[in-house]
Amino acid sequence: MAELPNCDTLLLNLEGGVLHVTLNRTDSRNAMSLAMVGELRAVLDSVRADAEVRAIVLRGAGGHFCAGGDIKDMAGARAKGSDAYRELNRAFGAMLEEFQQAPQVVIALLEGAVLGGGFGLACISDIAIADQACKFGLPETTLGILPAQIAPFVVKRVGLTQARRLALTAARFDGAEALRLGLVHYCEASDAALEQRLGEVLGQVRQCAPGANAATKALLLATEQEALGPLLDRAAEQFAAAVTGAEGIEGTMAFVQKRAARWAQ
Amino acid sequence: MAELPNCDTLLLNLEGGVLHVTLNRTDSRNAMSLAMVGELRAVLDSVRADAEVRAIVLRGAGGHFCAGGDIKDMAGARAKGSDAYRELNRAFGAMLEEFQQAPQVVIALLEGAVLGGGFGLACISDIAIADQACKFGLPETTLGILPAQIAPFVVKRVGLTQARRLALTAARFDGAEALRLGLVHYCEASDAALEQRLGEVLGQVRQCAPGANAATKALLLATEQEALGPLLDRAAEQFAAAVTGAEGIEGTMAFVQKRAARWAQ
Amino acid sequence: MAELPNCDTLLLNLEGGVLHVTLNRTDSRNAMSLAMVGELRAVLDSVRADAEVRAIVLRGAGGHFCAGGDIKDMAGARAKGSDAYRELNRAFGAMLEEFQQAPQVVIALLEGAVLGGGFGLACISDIAIADQACKFGLPETTLGILPAQIAPFVVKRVGLTQARRLALTAARFDGAEALRLGLVHYCEASDAALEQRLGEVLGQVRQCAPGANAATKALLLATEQEALGPLLDRAAEQFAAAVTGAEGIEGTMAFVQKRAARWAQ
Repeated sequence: MAELPNCDTLLLNLEGGVLHVTLNRTDSRNAMSLAMVGELRAVLDSVRADAEVRAIVLRGAGGHFCAGGDIKDMAGARAKGSDAYRELNRAFGAMLEEFQQAPQVVIALLEGAVLGGGFGLACISDIAIADQACKFGLPETTLGILPAQIAPFVVKRVGLTQARRLALTAARFDGAEALRLGLVHYCEASDAALEQRLGEVLGQVRQCAPGANAATKALLLATEQEALGPLLDRAAEQFAAAVTGAEGIEGTMAFVQKRAARWAQ
Repeated sequence: MAELPNCDTLLLNLEGGVLHVTLNRTDSRNAMSLAMVGELRAVLDSVRADAEVRAIVLRGAGGHFCAGGDIKDMAGARAKGSDAYRELNRAFGAMLEEFQQAPQVVIALLEGAVLGGGFGLACISDIAIADQACKFGLPETTLGILPAQIAPFVVKRVGLTQARRLALTAARFDGAEALRLGLVHYCEASDAALEQRLGEVLGQVRQCAPGANAATKALLLATEQEALGPLLDRAAEQFAAAVTGAEGIEGTMAFVQKRAARWAQ
Repeated sequence: MAELPNCDTLLLNLEGGVLHVTLNRTDSRNAMSLAMVGELRAVLDSVRADAEVRAIVLRGAGGHFCAGGDIKDMAGARAKGSDAYRELNRAFGAMLEEFQQAPQVVIALLEGAVLGGGFGLACISDIAIADQACKFGLPETTLGILPAQIAPFVVKRVGLTQARRLALTAARFDGAEALRLGLVHYCEASDAALEQRLGEVLGQVRQCAPGANAATKALLLATEQEALGPLLDRAAEQFAAAVTGAEGIEGTMAFVQKRAARWAQ
């Protein structure tokens, strides 16, 4: 079983195959510091290969998801010159890449501020559940800076048409609009409804075989980069391996026997 | 005129330039067998070069579109080993590729189960009309297997954001939700409304020159692969060929003379 | 300050950092002539490098945006042979490419006919505001010709799923449907509401630093072509340059001092 790292900026709770990660810098509405980036990467490293961990739930403490980059970190970097900014920024992007590729199903529970870097983090989730009162936005260019690392994830998430308006106007919007834009999958009106939706989604994920889900997720992400023919060739090999592997045998047998598969119990 | 192949798993009806193809294995909710894949490919081969066939309408007999892959075929392949699964799966993907590239307008009429492989088949249609009571879903990973060949077509159809939730939760949803996700173009509440919508869409297609439609469809698909500059260079050559060709001359003359073009009569 | 070219087919008005460009060939519902294409390109050339010009608003005179290609131009080209059509068509596509890449925020105000080439022009805007009574459509294939230069921009704008139906049926639709398809960002019910929305959007754009907006727009467009890793490396360098540059210093200082940044005054 995974040994989780000690974290200053995150609360961790692993229960029933679900790792709950709570951003916990409530003084700054969970602004994304370099320390937090490092801890998120370390947490993912510790569970990536653990098939018992089937989902990761990201949320923020104190009523906010994440208000973006940390201005203090930026001030600190300023003293060290331009290279420090570059490294700070790139580390954040590397974290997004890594969570995007996580074998686990990544679920984002969004409340309060979902701004800048927090917006980017929401964009790499497999399933996003937003509170209706969320405040989404990309305020970077109002500060004279760029939504640099998150740009590709935002475009992938909502499409170029919506991404360009959001980034070039810094418009704020709520959970209902986020649902309409396809940024999130659910918009809920209360804390209780958020938790209920999370429970429902986790119940669905438990019906799915962990290995099959991980392979499927990697395949979906690969479709954005690989040419169709070779991708389908490779997918057919993966299909054959899955059907003849342990999960495929158990899953189809359970189906025939009209019982729940091992992973769904 | 096209000579259609004899088929065991399909009902065929060619009328007024429209080829109606009905999946007809009602015992298994029209599950996609290797035989059906082969017959679908043969049917498309027989009409691909026939400019008189301007649209292909895909539907299922017995109140269902297609419930996915055929478990019996899989059982048969199991005896033959992993290679047989790979070939079975890849043949299905090849069929999807071929229908995606069909010069004809492909219309899917969706009722009942639209699951797994049936979901993938819906994703390659140019126009999809769903019954509100449809049951859409990607149940593969609940069986320990993968939506392998359909993954790229699903991502292309509804985008990565929606595809990842659907594939990693196996959630079921109806026609109204399919419309909201952009999976289908129309959602109708009754059989009569479905048929009426089909008639309306076929009427629109008849207004369009067949050669121009085929070239346009190929161009739209190519935009996903080719770089913008060279694509626009080639498109300009195709434009010039179309304007100075038989359809362009007839179409613009009919417009000036305020009469229906030959193909619209 | 930019010196604007003299134009026969366009009305120009540069005011408060916003260049208003009005297509003005009302006899033909502002059909896109070769002259108009040339003048649009010349206008963009004249302001491209001018950081004082922060937004370009495109609209049409006389209650229509643009009804598409000019049939008379096509007739003129016919006498000159197929090469003339190719060049005419390609010049239009080059204009679309150039406006797509404009450093300024491009806003389209859409009324009346938004057809064919006019539809394509709408597709390269960063923000599109439509009148509810707009008539959108791609009528090309009903004339036996192709939506050749606009095909990639339409697919990029609304996705392949919607683009194929629109191009292969030539269906007409209004502003509400355009909003639902993600073709436009706003749909308004009156002239007054259109102007009010334009004012609101321009107000948002003024909050954003011009250089940061131009760099962000280029980055968003680049995400469609470049591989993720190298793009994020480059984005981190741009981020560092922005934070340590004049706009970044002014923007973060204004934020700390709780005052409006220079560009927002």
